[in-house]
Amino acid sequence: MSTATKVNVHNFSAGPCILPQEVLRKAAESIVEFENTGLSIIEMSHRSKPFEGVMVKAQQLVKELLGAPEGYQVVFLGGGASMGFHMIPQNYLRPGGKSAYVHTGEWAGRAIKEAKLAGETVVVASSEDKNFSYIPKGFEVPADADYFHFTSNNTIFGTQYKAFPKSTVPLICDMSSDIFSRPVNVADFALIYGGAQKNMGPAGATVYLFDPAQLGRTGRKLSPMMDLANHAAKESMYNTPPVYAVYVSMLTMQWMKDQGGVKEMERRNAAKAKLLYDTIDRLPMFKGTTAVEDRSMMNATFVMTDAALEPSFDALWKAAGISGIRGHRSVGGYRASMYNALPIESVQVLVDVMEEFSKKNG
Amino acid sequence: MSTATKVNVHNFSAGPCILPQEVLRKAAESIVEFENTGLSIIEMSHRSKPFEGVMVKAQQLVKELLGAPEGYQVVFLGGGASMGFHMIPQNYLRPGGKSAYVHTGEWAGRAIKEAKLAGETVVVASSEDKNFSYIPKGFEVPADADYFHFTSNNTIFGTQYKAFPKSTVPLICDMSSDIFSRPVNVADFALIYGGAQKNMGPAGATVYLFDPAQLGRTGRKLSPMMDLANHAAKESMYNTPPVYAVYVSMLTMQWMKDQGGVKEMERRNAAKAKLLYDTIDRLPMFKGTTAVEDRSMMNATFVMTDAALEPSFDALWKAAGISGIRGHRSVGGYRASMYNALPIESVQVLVDVMEEFSKKNG
Repeated sequence: MSTATKVNVHNFSAGPCILPQEVLRKAAESIVEFENTGLSIIEMSHRSKPFEGVMVKAQQLVKELLGAPEGYQVVFLGGGASMGFHMIPQNYLRPGGKSAYVHTGEWAGRAIKEAKLAGETVVVASSEDKNFSYIPKGFEVPADADYFHFTSNNTIFGTQYKAFPKSTVPLICDMSSDIFSRPVNVADFALIYGGAQKNMGPAGATVYLFDPAQLGRTGRKLSPMMDLANHAAKESMYNTPPVYAVYVSMLTMQWMKDQGGVKEMERRNAAKAKLLYDTIDRLPMFKGTTAVEDRSMMNATFVMTDAALEPSFDALWKAAGISGIRGHRSVGGYRASMYNALPIESVQVLVDVMEEFSKKNG
Repeated sequence: MSTATKVNVHNFSAGPCILPQEVLRKAAESIVEFENTGLSIIEMSHRSKPFEGVMVKAQQLVKELLGAPEGYQVVFLGGGASMGFHMIPQNYLRPGGKSAYVHTGEWAGRAIKEAKLAGETVVVASSEDKNFSYIPKGFEVPADADYFHFTSNNTIFGTQYKAFPKSTVPLICDMSSDIFSRPVNVADFALIYGGAQKNMGPAGATVYLFDPAQLGRTGRKLSPMMDLANHAAKESMYNTPPVYAVYVSMLTMQWMKDQGGVKEMERRNAAKAKLLYDTIDRLPMFKGTTAVEDRSMMNATFVMTDAALEPSFDALWKAAGISGIRGHRSVGGYRASMYNALPIESVQVLVDVMEEFSKKNG
């Protein structure tokens, strides 16, 4: 396996997305042989000592990186955060009870759809009126809701909560696209969950970090596959877990820890975001698509003021080795995703291209 | 990455299990860079052209290898076959209807548990009376059942259907541990499904092969995540699929095709099974644990007639580089799993160890 000819790609993909090169190297080695076991990581039992060690370490790293309070539990499951949308009402909604959601985009909307199939669902606020270009504020959560759900970062629309809503009811957050990008106060949440395929690792695993004291209160008889408490009691091994996705997530979390943890990730992410957003704001040719105060550090969405110039701009960034910045069809324009593993040098390349294009065509 | 020092392990693991060396090499390369894209397979969008090509090819290979009739559909999901246990009643059981199951072991039992949570469930036959050491025969399936479910191969207990039960109601089969090990007549089945982590690939993906005409008949309003028809309509991309597990499954299926398909797999598996079972039957020191006519070609379970000799037998096979043959705690003794990718040479090593041990201690 030679990496000598590998093209230098600046990977702004929205997810699955860039992972640290060190992680990829180790992840590839372990496919051939995992730590002198003579076996590939993907051809050994999930109940073998080596993999049990991986699972325990992955759980510990989630808690350590996020500074989870004593007693919080971690579970890794397949199915994506979308399966979480489906499981959450089953674990937290009492029959006849109601849930509260904020609608801030595609994935929040899918979570709401699942909740509505399960019971009464109050959408306490929505930014649908302006194509989800802002984060609603000043809303009220019904005090008798069984839980309150929101989406911390909206990958498609490029918005992000800067301050988390407070609530007297159990707080549940889908952090799929910004988990581990900044410190959070875990004790404020009954449940934080997210698909792995942004900052945590490859697609295929979903992490659930929760306060077990908030489970088992609905009186529902749950399917064991839907039951977070069951999965926790079985250490994520009620059935065969998504072994490799958990393993590469563990490597990526170890990388974050080695780099200085989520505080350092936040510092880097803030620097990258500032560099790009400052450029968007300075160059009249480009325009951000979201409310400035709600701009995501993870996904910067922007358009060209003259859409006719898009093809020639596209040619320029492609020539510079930039990949994955075409915007989602529901927003158009561009989206530069700047997850933890994206070096600021890649953002600089994009910024340089934008500058160069502006000069040529300004 | 050097493979020069890799120990030669004879991998009899029950799953996740041995994969072809060629597949592992390519799978490792693609972690570093996937087909000159400059990106790892795990850091590119699942909606990128290269990965869409992988998904389409994986779907095609399932249908091609199994000779599925025109119109059958393939879906890859996360969550394991255990999620299938949960989804099946939702997709096939009418409210107020009933399902029929055969109970042949741990995983059949879990499928039944899920079915019972969903509605009336008739267990038409069970081999629990003899610790699941045989496959029940001559049972009747109620003609008014919405579907009939069985488990083609029982990994833990080492039994396998040699002839599939016939039924006038839609037939559903969990083939997790013997899919692609032999030809099947797909047209007989409404749904065949299985976790990837035996013959198909690594843990993390589950394949569903089904006749879409048998879906949508229950009148239930399904969650989109539970709805096989929805996943099929979205080409397994309703949400982010388990990218790498699908990719390595595709490679493994391509390997099977290149080797001669499932007919050739069956020929090899039969030869391996004959070699081992003949040895078990010939040597008085060993004894098979299942009914001879129901012996699994995938998982051979056996015990020592004198259990006190186990520690010295264990030392011998470990010294020979054999891995993963300790039996499941619910059967004890030994279980040699001989999936598609296990070469007959590894079975020969085990047989030689058994012979040698018998001579020394006979």
